[in-house]
Amino acid sequence: MKRYDLIVIGSGPGGYIAAQRAGNLGKSVLLIEADALGGVCTNHGCIPTKSLLGGAKLYKHALSGAQFGLEVDGARFNYNQASAHKDETVKTLRSGIEFLMKSAKVDVIFGHAQVLDEHTVEVNKERYGCDYLILATGSSSLVPPIKGSTLPHVLTSTEILALSEAPESLVVIGGGVIGIEFASFFSMIGTKVTVIEMMDEILPMADGEFAKLLRRELKGVDFHLGCKVEEIDAKHVHYTTKAGDRKSIEARMVLLSVGRKPNTAGFEALPLFIERGGVVVNDRMQTNLPTVYAVGDVNGKSLLAHSASRMAEVAVSNIFGSKQMRMRYDAIPWAVYSSPEVAGCGLTEAEANKRGLPIKSQTVQMRASGRFLAEEGKRAGGLVKVIAHRDSGAIVGIHLLGSYASEIIWGAAAIIEAELRVQDVKEIVFPHPSVNELIKDACFALDASV
Amino acid sequence: MKRYDLIVIGSGPGGYIAAQRAGNLGKSVLLIEADALGGVCTNHGCIPTKSLLGGAKLYKHALSGAQFGLEVDGARFNYNQASAHKDETVKTLRSGIEFLMKSAKVDVIFGHAQVLDEHTVEVNKERYGCDYLILATGSSSLVPPIKGSTLPHVLTSTEILALSEAPESLVVIGGGVIGIEFASFFSMIGTKVTVIEMMDEILPMADGEFAKLLRRELKGVDFHLGCKVEEIDAKHVHYTTKAGDRKSIEARMVLLSVGRKPNTAGFEALPLFIERGGVVVNDRMQTNLPTVYAVGDVNGKSLLAHSASRMAEVAVSNIFGSKQMRMRYDAIPWAVYSSPEVAGCGLTEAEANKRGLPIKSQTVQMRASGRFLAEEGKRAGGLVKVIAHRDSGAIVGIHLLGSYASEIIWGAAAIIEAELRVQDVKEIVFPHPSVNELIKDACFALDASV
Repeated sequence: MKRYDLIVIGSGPGGYIAAQRAGNLGKSVLLIEADALGGVCTNHGCIPTKSLLGGAKLYKHALSGAQFGLEVDGARFNYNQASAHKDETVKTLRSGIEFLMKSAKVDVIFGHAQVLDEHTVEVNKERYGCDYLILATGSSSLVPPIKGSTLPHVLTSTEILALSEAPESLVVIGGGVIGIEFASFFSMIGTKVTVIEMMDEILPMADGEFAKLLRRELKGVDFHLGCKVEEIDAKHVHYTTKAGDRKSIEARMVLLSVGRKPNTAGFEALPLFIERGGVVVNDRMQTNLPTVYAVGDVNGKSLLAHSASRMAEVAVSNIFGSKQMRMRYDAIPWAVYSSPEVAGCGLTEAEANKRGLPIKSQTVQMRASGRFLAEEGKRAGGLVKVIAHRDSGAIVGIHLLGSYASEIIWGAAAIIEAELRVQDVKEIVFPHPSVNELIKDACFALDASV
Repeated sequence: MKRYDLIVIGSGPGGYIAAQRAGNLGKSVLLIEADALGGVCTNHGCIPTKSLLGGAKLYKHALSGAQFGLEVDGARFNYNQASAHKDETVKTLRSGIEFLMKSAKVDVIFGHAQVLDEHTVEVNKERYGCDYLILATGSSSLVPPIKGSTLPHVLTSTEILALSEAPESLVVIGGGVIGIEFASFFSMIGTKVTVIEMMDEILPMADGEFAKLLRRELKGVDFHLGCKVEEIDAKHVHYTTKAGDRKSIEARMVLLSVGRKPNTAGFEALPLFIERGGVVVNDRMQTNLPTVYAVGDVNGKSLLAHSASRMAEVAVSNIFGSKQMRMRYDAIPWAVYSSPEVAGCGLTEAEANKRGLPIKSQTVQMRASGRFLAEEGKRAGGLVKVIAHRDSGAIVGIHLLGSYASEIIWGAAAIIEAELRVQDVKEIVFPHPSVNELIKDACFALDASV
């Protein structure tokens, strides 16, 4: 039986980063993948959606550029070409991960892993031994127990990525990140899109003001909030409104994006603590079994690709490294790559209030930015909000809606991670003209002293 | 004679920010402007160029979107419409500054200021007294002493913004930020563009590797480096190559972008120290006259809008505020809004070497980013470089070429200002997929420990 310092099960942004970091420390590592390198993120999530959204944004801009001087005779979105580009992007990135694994001298085996005990894993009928085990098996789309949810035109996010043409109409069930990105994509390319969300607002991690504005900016999308889907049939989605009325919407296609569940199949032999479906871990990513760690969606702590990667680093640090890294959840940025984009890092006002944190906050309209005005025009909506501790001035949250949000937000993660205060941010020189400089404006509005 | 706590001369990003910050502290402020509120930046610089570049980028994307699924029958750039949008953007932002001045209770007078002594300024034949004076008069395009440089088709950056149609061909003399942005703009909309630069490389503040890649990515632009323009006539620009050969290029239009000179007219009565044309200041922005400060281009220290704004804050802090702020130049970001964009903050490798700083550096290709690959395709060029102190790991420079560079770079300013080290950046969670996360990849490549 071949023995490794570390076996990692699952090669998504949790698993492959764990394997790479450990390999680069000189450890012997086996990475086991049941599907394709890169996991859901690379193959059925982050990357293919961003490829499609990129093309759709170009199409939207081509149609709406007249005020900026762009004249177009006729524009079409070629779904097959966009899809081919998406597939090529995924393939290139998979090769990239393959290359990283080779560089880090990580062995890779494709097959379903069955954990026999804390130090033994079986795959393709072979057994492999290890000192440490990292579970990084990710999550799967939740298919809710709704009548009709397994009909052929009712798709998960993985299935909808395999379409060869855009549906005429689409009902998206669930207004979280995945639902909203697909709603934005299909709406940009001409599909009639309706989102049905059970909660009173979309995007639960977003500041309420931002979620509301996003709904307004997603002009082609109809939203039904506080509504419960009762049944799906061949042509309709039937739902109950908050007031108790029964209604239905015609839908050629339905996307189920109501949530995801951790993948724990294969761990049955391990006496793991599992709560609400996720493997329980401490802030070192260690499970109740001292040599077994769990990173990424499988622990249910933060279902984001970059959270998984960070957890992987924390796990490897605590197994083979400095043992100093701890997982913190207060400075994890998130982004929705809709058009317009939304992004945030840290607390919303509602979350801060719930924690009893005394805060001050300032919202600035994006049209106060010369760059935003120059590139988006004065009718475009956009917001920046900075939330700080009322007394210390420590920045606890930054939220963005509008152009470049997803690429601006990392600086907020840096600021919150470094525990900078409003008065520190005022010392930072922001480039002009930019959208990001509105963060500085918000800080000066919170505290005018110099 | 009406007296103020502060008189500010010039309402660009140095002057209006100084007036606003002081006004918001409850001080009585008079702001004097000879032209239009906002100065060169708002009226003839940053803002109008970004408006035009925004439209041109849409046009470029419309023409080059086929691989991403965008099909366009025919596309044209409507110069008049782009120009009208530019003018509207400028007007909106001017009104914005007017509003800010009202909110901060700043008096504004239009006219040429003549400083009579350190506490008296004359404008429109009226005299005004002040305790403190901030000079924020900016700079003007340098017209080099070249034969033909005053011919009607030879324009400064201010004049070229007033065109009503694109020239068939354009020779840009000077490959600094201004020259490169116009070269990129006109090249995108179909003008045949040539850049003649006296130095061996364009963009002196950029890392050499980045400037070189930008030249390659600006596919429609011809570059002649190390060349000295000798004479301009009605149809040609004549220049001498590095090897000493005399050559000439046909040009319907010529842009002079060889540099800018501080505007010191009106200060003749003040015994100011002036060096290389700029008003000498200390790190509090104070001139040799204790109650007179000089911020922005007029002191020649850093000819960037946001540097001027920061200097304004430093000046007001030292006059009326905490007196704690000092001007530092090591964490000032810069951005070139060409297509592709280039941005940087801190030192280049060459600058670090010149200072004798022991460094380590890591360059990452942007195509290692899933987002970049998804949105730009695998043939697009792009780079990220992180430079750190070899021993302490302190980040001393971050450089970017490629999409979102100008909106990513503020985080680099935050990191360098907060004196974070490579090991600190590795603790920051970057959003995935993003271009900015390559900064983290570069940091892990510099130091693989966890």
